[in-house]
Amino acid sequence: MKKSQEENLIIKNIIFDVDGVFTNGKFVYNAEGKIFKEFGAHDSDGIKLLKRAGINVFSVTADKRGFEISKARMHDLGLELYLKNEASRLDWVVENFDLSTTGYMGDGHYDAVILSKVALGIAPMNATQVAKLSANFITPSIGGSGAVYEACIQILEYIGEAY
Amino acid sequence: MKKSQEENLIIKNIIFDVDGVFTNGKFVYNAEGKIFKEFGAHDSDGIKLLKRAGINVFSVTADKRGFEISKARMHDLGLELYLKNEASRLDWVVENFDLSTTGYMGDGHYDAVILSKVALGIAPMNATQVAKLSANFITPSIGGSGAVYEACIQILEYIGEAY
Amino acid sequence: MKKSQEENLIIKNIIFDVDGVFTNGKFVYNAEGKIFKEFGAHDSDGIKLLKRAGINVFSVTADKRGFEISKARMHDLGLELYLKNEASRLDWVVENFDLSTTGYMGDGHYDAVILSKVALGIAPMNATQVAKLSANFITPSIGGSGAVYEACIQILEYIGEAY
Amino acid sequence: MKKSQEENLIIKNIIFDVDGVFTNGKFVYNAEGKIFKEFGAHDSDGIKLLKRAGINVFSVTADKRGFEISKARMHDLGLELYLKNEASRLDWVVENFDLSTTGYMGDGHYDAVILSKVALGIAPMNATQVAKLSANFITPSIGGSGAVYEACIQILEYIGEAY
Repeated sequence: MKKSQEENLIIKNIIFDVDGVFTNGKFVYNAEGKIFKEFGAHDSDGIKLLKRAGINVFSVTADKRGFEISKARMHDLGLELYLKNEASRLDWVVENFDLSTTGYMGDGHYDAVILSKVALGIAPMNATQVAKLSANFITPSIGGSGAVYEACIQILEYIGEAY
Repeated sequence: MKKSQEENLIIKNIIFDVDGVFTNGKFVYNAEGKIFKEFGAHDSDGIKLLKRAGINVFSVTADKRGFEISKARMHDLGLELYLKNEASRLDWVVENFDLSTTGYMGDGHYDAVILSKVALGIAPMNATQVAKLSANFITPSIGGSGAVYEACIQILEYIGEAY
Repeated sequence: MKKSQEENLIIKNIIFDVDGVFTNGKFVYNAEGKIFKEFGAHDSDGIKLLKRAGINVFSVTADKRGFEISKARMHDLGLELYLKNEASRLDWVVENFDLSTTGYMGDGHYDAVILSKVALGIAPMNATQVAKLSANFITPSIGGSGAVYEACIQILEYIGEAY
Repeated sequence: MKKSQEENLIIKNIIFDVDGVFTNGKFVYNAEGKIFKEFGAHDSDGIKLLKRAGINVFSVTADKRGFEISKARMHDLGLELYLKNEASRLDWVVENFDLSTTGYMGDGHYDAVILSKVALGIAPMNATQVAKLSANFITPSIGGSGAVYEACIQILEYIGEAY
């Protein structure tokens, strides 16, 4: 299922984890709990380029307490956000997507197994060691500082799409 | 239209993009949407030095949802802020400024084409690869951590102005 | 009391300092005082792995003004938070824990003496020089960017536990 | 007036600039204007060590709009905060302190001249180039991430005080 270096990949779906991918992985707390997250400016350009190339783009998070915060940003990016915890995420991916034409970008301990199964696994520079070891490509920048944008450009290069 | 290394540039106008230039490119979200941006402390000194040298300074953003946040900071810096999206920005620059005496500082995917056309194109260290490749000068610091200040100092050096 | 490199450590308790360990050490202030802290996304996975391995996990802070903020995050991680200032912290550790089976992670000036007395002392990359010099292990990442997660993985390796 | 490397300095007063020294230089804005700043956790330990050594510690800022935010943090550190803009700051230092026994820590364009005149000038790693060139010592860390703490330790070493 892994990509061949000799010919262009066919990627129809890309799934992005949120925390540590669209963000720097930070949760800002006040005395009541989690209230803010920090997203990056370049990523919207990358997402638009993927969509223009006809790729279906999805976002997924395990963060229940911060779901509404993540949803507000995903809404501004025009992306549906799914709530799937670490235990159920791999099953959700396998059941809903054709792995041979699906890419995934994630940074966490439990993302590693998914990254190793999809056609194109991408990890941001700030990912855990296990996630990085399972990825096909590691972005030069960290989440929230251009990682998603760089992933999108790389995907377009892998599939042979001009941008 | 590009600068000659042998003689001083004549720069009458400088246009600064906001996100990733005056900021680190971060958008802070709560459950309602975008609410904060982080600006840097040194930049006001740089802007004052440019103005003292008689240069007209402008700021421009494509961020409609965060416009009022950016405007609050630009107000404190004494700068007018224009809202121009990526599609219309190049036209706006071409129609309103003499490119041969205008500098531009930007970091994004769509800033690259503008950076390549103005007399002096500057990108912060955190810029996208395409923006960096189109710039005449890349600041040592990232946006929000001194990039605008460093750009101002560099501009004063290019035009042969003491500071 | 120091760990032998030849055989697995026995670690029954781990105590984590909060600021600079679970956070990047930043205190966000408004005009009224301290209101926010920034925590990291990976750390909860690490804490869960420690607990699954049967290790008792504790958190401790000297930050009285920010106690409720830290408590909100520790609550989300399922950890009890103790308020012990620098002067009393070493005594508290000595009186309540068997040092020969206890690990400690801290970054500050006054954490150094504790780090040098426990069975396993861990400092994040952003720790003060004295804390780093007293630690057995320094995490590759800074607090709030994976330091606790990395510490947990390292602890599991030291005690010979699969993860 | 500059320090001799051969004998211990006598330092009776230390003046700390705030933005970029106690903070990372960031101003967080919402649509109403400047509302937050980010301070660091280690600095209070350093300030306490200086005071215990009998040194008078002062803080100064040019940031009028953010004055109340800075004051809230300086209050928590037990420091008086003076509001002096760039134009008047050098005069204020000269008129109120004996330069031969006074240290100063600052990062900005207009701090450079002060740093070059005091007995001990310190700049954080994130300082402007001119400030760094005028300083006797540059801290390994940036403001808000331990720079003040490191400056305090260095001062104690310069004056031959145990810590």
